[in-house]
Amino acid sequence: MGANSTHSIRIIKVNAAEVASAIDVLAIEEPLEIRLEHGPDGQRQVQNISVTMRTPGHDAELANGFLFTESIIKNSEDIAKTEHCFIACAEDKENVIQVSLAPDIVPHLQNAERNFYTTSSCGVCGKGSINAIRTVSSFVVEPEDSDTIQSSVLYQLPVILRKHQRIFEDTGGLHASALFTTMGELLLLREDVGRHNALDKLIGAALNYNWLPLRQTILLLSGRASFELIQKAAMAGINIIASVGAPSSLAVQLAQEFNITLIGFLRDERFNVYTAAHRVQIPRYETIMSAAHKPE
Amino acid sequence: MGANSTHSIRIIKVNAAEVASAIDVLAIEEPLEIRLEHGPDGQRQVQNISVTMRTPGHDAELANGFLFTESIIKNSEDIAKTEHCFIACAEDKENVIQVSLAPDIVPHLQNAERNFYTTSSCGVCGKGSINAIRTVSSFVVEPEDSDTIQSSVLYQLPVILRKHQRIFEDTGGLHASALFTTMGELLLLREDVGRHNALDKLIGAALNYNWLPLRQTILLLSGRASFELIQKAAMAGINIIASVGAPSSLAVQLAQEFNITLIGFLRDERFNVYTAAHRVQIPRYETIMSAAHKPE
Repeated sequence: MGANSTHSIRIIKVNAAEVASAIDVLAIEEPLEIRLEHGPDGQRQVQNISVTMRTPGHDAELANGFLFTESIIKNSEDIAKTEHCFIACAEDKENVIQVSLAPDIVPHLQNAERNFYTTSSCGVCGKGSINAIRTVSSFVVEPEDSDTIQSSVLYQLPVILRKHQRIFEDTGGLHASALFTTMGELLLLREDVGRHNALDKLIGAALNYNWLPLRQTILLLSGRASFELIQKAAMAGINIIASVGAPSSLAVQLAQEFNITLIGFLRDERFNVYTAAHRVQIPRYETIMSAAHKPE
Repeated sequence: MGANSTHSIRIIKVNAAEVASAIDVLAIEEPLEIRLEHGPDGQRQVQNISVTMRTPGHDAELANGFLFTESIIKNSEDIAKTEHCFIACAEDKENVIQVSLAPDIVPHLQNAERNFYTTSSCGVCGKGSINAIRTVSSFVVEPEDSDTIQSSVLYQLPVILRKHQRIFEDTGGLHASALFTTMGELLLLREDVGRHNALDKLIGAALNYNWLPLRQTILLLSGRASFELIQKAAMAGINIIASVGAPSSLAVQLAQEFNITLIGFLRDERFNVYTAAHRVQIPRYETIMSAAHKPE
């Protein structure tokens, strides 16, 4: 892996009502657009094939492997070269890679119809995506709110989740999204093999109940917090998100932009606060923010 | 959740060199096609919007939530009704759902360009997808192989993986795919925020090295085994797949069809064998298969 697979940021660590400022290392999550150049000499064409959210590093392997496992190419001889390429819209050329096929190779793009991301070029830069969300969401651009949550309530959330997660209990293999009040009362719980589906089900239910925007609630994610999940939560107007696992770099960036409180590694009476710590209250400290900034 | 979110099958449980036949409960993973009907009366049109691999249950919430979080619709009043629908190709109508918008609502489909799955109708049934793979893969249709693996080697794989998983160590937030020889020697390790990307990187590397088909190797997945991962492994000719987490129902079905040995919950000197147990050897038993079928 290249040196750019991780990213360090300053966070607030809470552990048994102790608060400390600390450095945390995030896995970088960034979009990669895979482009395919093919055709006989003089008639070469370039197509966008896929955009995937990935950790930078081994990008050429990712592009070649993707084309092979999706059966667009048959073997390594089909590929003339694979290189990162500069395009006007991309701020970072590392986020676009082009696979050039040998002139006589016809890619099997009909195989690609099954499950490919289609995309506009501007989906390539994370920043572009974040701006797009700002434009389309009805709820994310709002004045400062007054939602807060107690650390003692946060500690209880994974315990309550586990108690109610029936399918996980049976199978050991399900993601969950749960919605709580800021007092820690469970409002909704949805499970799915896909983490984004569990959250879509939850927000779909809230939509049916006319609960949106979901102010004064906390979203708990059973696993990691990815960009896509924060984005969906932002669309529903959720201000506080806690995940049992780690957040990605782009998840933190998005939460920061939208003033969403993002909590990670919430388990065993510990958690990390990545963004908007002013909403988290713990005993003996008015808010975490002031505690972390106290002189040592 | 409906009663069809889980599925029970007979498996072989191995624990400290003990072998037992047991019933295991799998989380069901099946495709759901989301269709959108919209337009003024007399000019209604239907579009395929997305195919997602999901756990059945709360499908209408999933469809409505998806349309909302992807900002194709703005609120619940946009939706006239959401219903499962019968289409000719789908064996199970539970796998297609149609959201009908009110006649005056224009969906914001330009927002959808960013990250949607496009699909042909036949991607909807798992069986269709499995047949499609059979057609396109160069490696999956081969005569019986002689790959085997010792249980003692299997026990070591997660230990070796963790030792080499540098980014996970730093961030707590990465998926890994690792390729081992059947003797337990690490050949390749790739990490990514996306589980499918980690595997594509690994197979892309193997492709560059001209190692395909990957007979006489074991693929270790750091998390759960989904349909998509088994499919990619099958494309590369991998015969033995072990995952630290649970497999989904469709992952097991695909492994069975292609005579791939699928092992789940490989941790702490235990594992479950879901399919093609004849490749797994443990002390005191010639192969697991014969042991499990011994009279009690």
